[in-house]
Amino acid sequence: MRLSAYFLPLLKENPAEAQIVSHRLMLRAGMIRQASAGIYSWLPLGFRVLKKIEQIVREEQDASGAQEMLMPTIQSAELWRESGRYDDYGKEMLRIRDRADREMLYGPTNEELITDIFRSVVKSYRDLPKNLYHIQWKFRDEVRPRFGVMRGREFLMKDNYSFDIDQKAARHSYNKMFVAYLRTFARMGLKAIPMRADTGPIGGDLSHEFIILADTGESAVYCDKAWLEADILAEAANVDYENDLQPFVDKWTRLYAATDEKHDPAAIPADRLVTARGIEVGHIFYFGTKYSKPMNAVVAAPDGQMVPVEMGSYGIGVSRLVGAIIEASHDENGIIWPESVAPFKVGLVNLRASDKKCTAACDELYAKLRAAQLEVLYDDRDESPGAKFATMDLIGLPWQLVVGPRGLAAGKVELKHRKTGVREELTPEAALQKLAS
Amino acid sequence: MRLSAYFLPLLKENPAEAQIVSHRLMLRAGMIRQASAGIYSWLPLGFRVLKKIEQIVREEQDASGAQEMLMPTIQSAELWRESGRYDDYGKEMLRIRDRADREMLYGPTNEELITDIFRSVVKSYRDLPKNLYHIQWKFRDEVRPRFGVMRGREFLMKDNYSFDIDQKAARHSYNKMFVAYLRTFARMGLKAIPMRADTGPIGGDLSHEFIILADTGESAVYCDKAWLEADILAEAANVDYENDLQPFVDKWTRLYAATDEKHDPAAIPADRLVTARGIEVGHIFYFGTKYSKPMNAVVAAPDGQMVPVEMGSYGIGVSRLVGAIIEASHDENGIIWPESVAPFKVGLVNLRASDKKCTAACDELYAKLRAAQLEVLYDDRDESPGAKFATMDLIGLPWQLVVGPRGLAAGKVELKHRKTGVREELTPEAALQKLAS
Repeated sequence: MRLSAYFLPLLKENPAEAQIVSHRLMLRAGMIRQASAGIYSWLPLGFRVLKKIEQIVREEQDASGAQEMLMPTIQSAELWRESGRYDDYGKEMLRIRDRADREMLYGPTNEELITDIFRSVVKSYRDLPKNLYHIQWKFRDEVRPRFGVMRGREFLMKDNYSFDIDQKAARHSYNKMFVAYLRTFARMGLKAIPMRADTGPIGGDLSHEFIILADTGESAVYCDKAWLEADILAEAANVDYENDLQPFVDKWTRLYAATDEKHDPAAIPADRLVTARGIEVGHIFYFGTKYSKPMNAVVAAPDGQMVPVEMGSYGIGVSRLVGAIIEASHDENGIIWPESVAPFKVGLVNLRASDKKCTAACDELYAKLRAAQLEVLYDDRDESPGAKFATMDLIGLPWQLVVGPRGLAAGKVELKHRKTGVREELTPEAALQKLAS
Repeated sequence: MRLSAYFLPLLKENPAEAQIVSHRLMLRAGMIRQASAGIYSWLPLGFRVLKKIEQIVREEQDASGAQEMLMPTIQSAELWRESGRYDDYGKEMLRIRDRADREMLYGPTNEELITDIFRSVVKSYRDLPKNLYHIQWKFRDEVRPRFGVMRGREFLMKDNYSFDIDQKAARHSYNKMFVAYLRTFARMGLKAIPMRADTGPIGGDLSHEFIILADTGESAVYCDKAWLEADILAEAANVDYENDLQPFVDKWTRLYAATDEKHDPAAIPADRLVTARGIEVGHIFYFGTKYSKPMNAVVAAPDGQMVPVEMGSYGIGVSRLVGAIIEASHDENGIIWPESVAPFKVGLVNLRASDKKCTAACDELYAKLRAAQLEVLYDDRDESPGAKFATMDLIGLPWQLVVGPRGLAAGKVELKHRKTGVREELTPEAALQKLAS
């Protein structure tokens, strides 16, 4: 993509309304624009990151055996009356009356709707286990939306729902998600630590929050220092979902980690304790028959008896993650995208667009990068080098390939790694090779 | 995917509420389930088709130079007051009050919101042209939702918006979409015929509907018989978007095609006339300054004057297309998916799941098909051959690979082409080769 044609409205000044760094940087980098309080439009650069994150979530859900579907945003109030949550949910639920005066709502979550689908078609233990997920916009009418996409009203969430015949099978489904979540966040360059959580309004017996560490995190967290060195991706990569996952889950739940409200200083030696700030990015629940009982979602057990199905639900804040990753990965100049979620891998910088030779060399590199299937944003604008460097640092692409007349005269271009700041002079061919590897 | 594990709730009976064939088949094939009147959940099989269609739309938009973004579903009423459409829109607009009693709405379309984004950041002709699109759920509170996803209330639409400095440039943007739409529908195996349309509530000067032919179509259409033989994909494939597209557009608008309301029998010789039924799947509009004027979306022209930007909007009914493709491609046994949008390419049928040798051969074929990156649905259930054939014909995968003990004893499997019904006996290796080619 040529920057001259790209819809990337950068802001020079820090927007006054943004209180936290991710909100500031997303606005300045032209990733989002507020449409109404707590409701955002995703501009092309932000949208690309959102899609990258969504795709990693999808791939890890699929790998775990969950099946993707899609439930609508607008639901009928009836189902929520069946579960008893219609009145409980309070003002956070966006309530709507349609033209026929039917009570509808914008789904804040989907336990009721998925349970309704399930009960209408699944009748036997033979059709279990099932794990269904969707990635869909939700609405929670927060009284004070703020922090950009971190606490918006309309937000994108991956939520899934597991259905099992008994507690043992349900525990296995829960464990699968535990592993899938560790893998998902690790692939995004995040260290997400599972912490025992209260089950809250979803209800149930067993729950973990997944919390990433970020200096600017919303809450205090405490964990064993071994978490900081753990290579979760390597550990989780070798897990076979069909095996017993309990030993793996035990290993990673035994290692101390707790939110502020659950922290017990006596539970961990002081010399092993790390105190940090955290951001919740995922939450998993096992809640048994909390919905299947009132909604009569029953299946025939092997002995012929009809029993309510055992359920769990599992959420990842997809749009929230865009902000959370920035909170965890930025510096004073801007965003530092992990490669797996970067909107483009390479920023190609033409230092002198008015110089024909320089532009010809850049055009050729641009064509070659695209031919190699590398995602590249090409700054072909007629701007000062300073402005171009600032833009690249702000939007945080992993690699900057800098081309100027002086370097070219010596047959060289410069490759800068955004994260480490390391710069390297090399031939254009060597740069291409390095980027393609 | 193994059918024994897949969430595919098939219906044996025709559902009484479904009046048209696509609705019937989508319900019977376990693709969708109604959540409320005119609001559907997309079950895994239906979701796969929806995603395939969405991806083709996306690729063709990208190829045309349009940039993807995403606007929210919930909008503020304020913007719609600026354009004057808030009161005009009537009861089809789902109006909402949030907890702070602000007037909001579920977007039925996005001219106002995109114009607001545009005017806030684009100030000069130098930043034009721009064409921004998104693929997002919309809501239109139809008084009588029916025909399944063909006329639902919550529906997925690709809509984009072009911004140009003058009419000539705007016409080029319009022409780009004209070409992109022909390519998009042709890639889905559809013959979509552009027909001059009234501009309706969107307003403006120039508009075409894209209508596909289907015996069960919603309205009468009339066209030159040359349309039936035209290979639009081949013609449109060679179009370069940077060239003047007017000759191409002229060619395909000169050839007679008209909706019922526009049909003029005098305009076409009777021996060239084809009378058929059609379904609208896309609509493009050039409406000039209809929104930019009242909303003050102005840019500096080369002479320094501030002028309202020239706009067009362009819509494709993504979820509607799932139904429309079925209307255009089915027989008495079920759906016949064009390969490009099929949920799986191959249905692998194990004729005797209780036979160890047969199952071993099927398992091996399944592994090989997956290794070759072919999307395969493996019917490993313990059901009668008749039930399995009926299922495969119903869900309409392009290829059925049928494996039974008798054929295997002779070293053969059967490959059936769903569309033509042609069956072929061949070795497993030859079948794999044919499917992979």
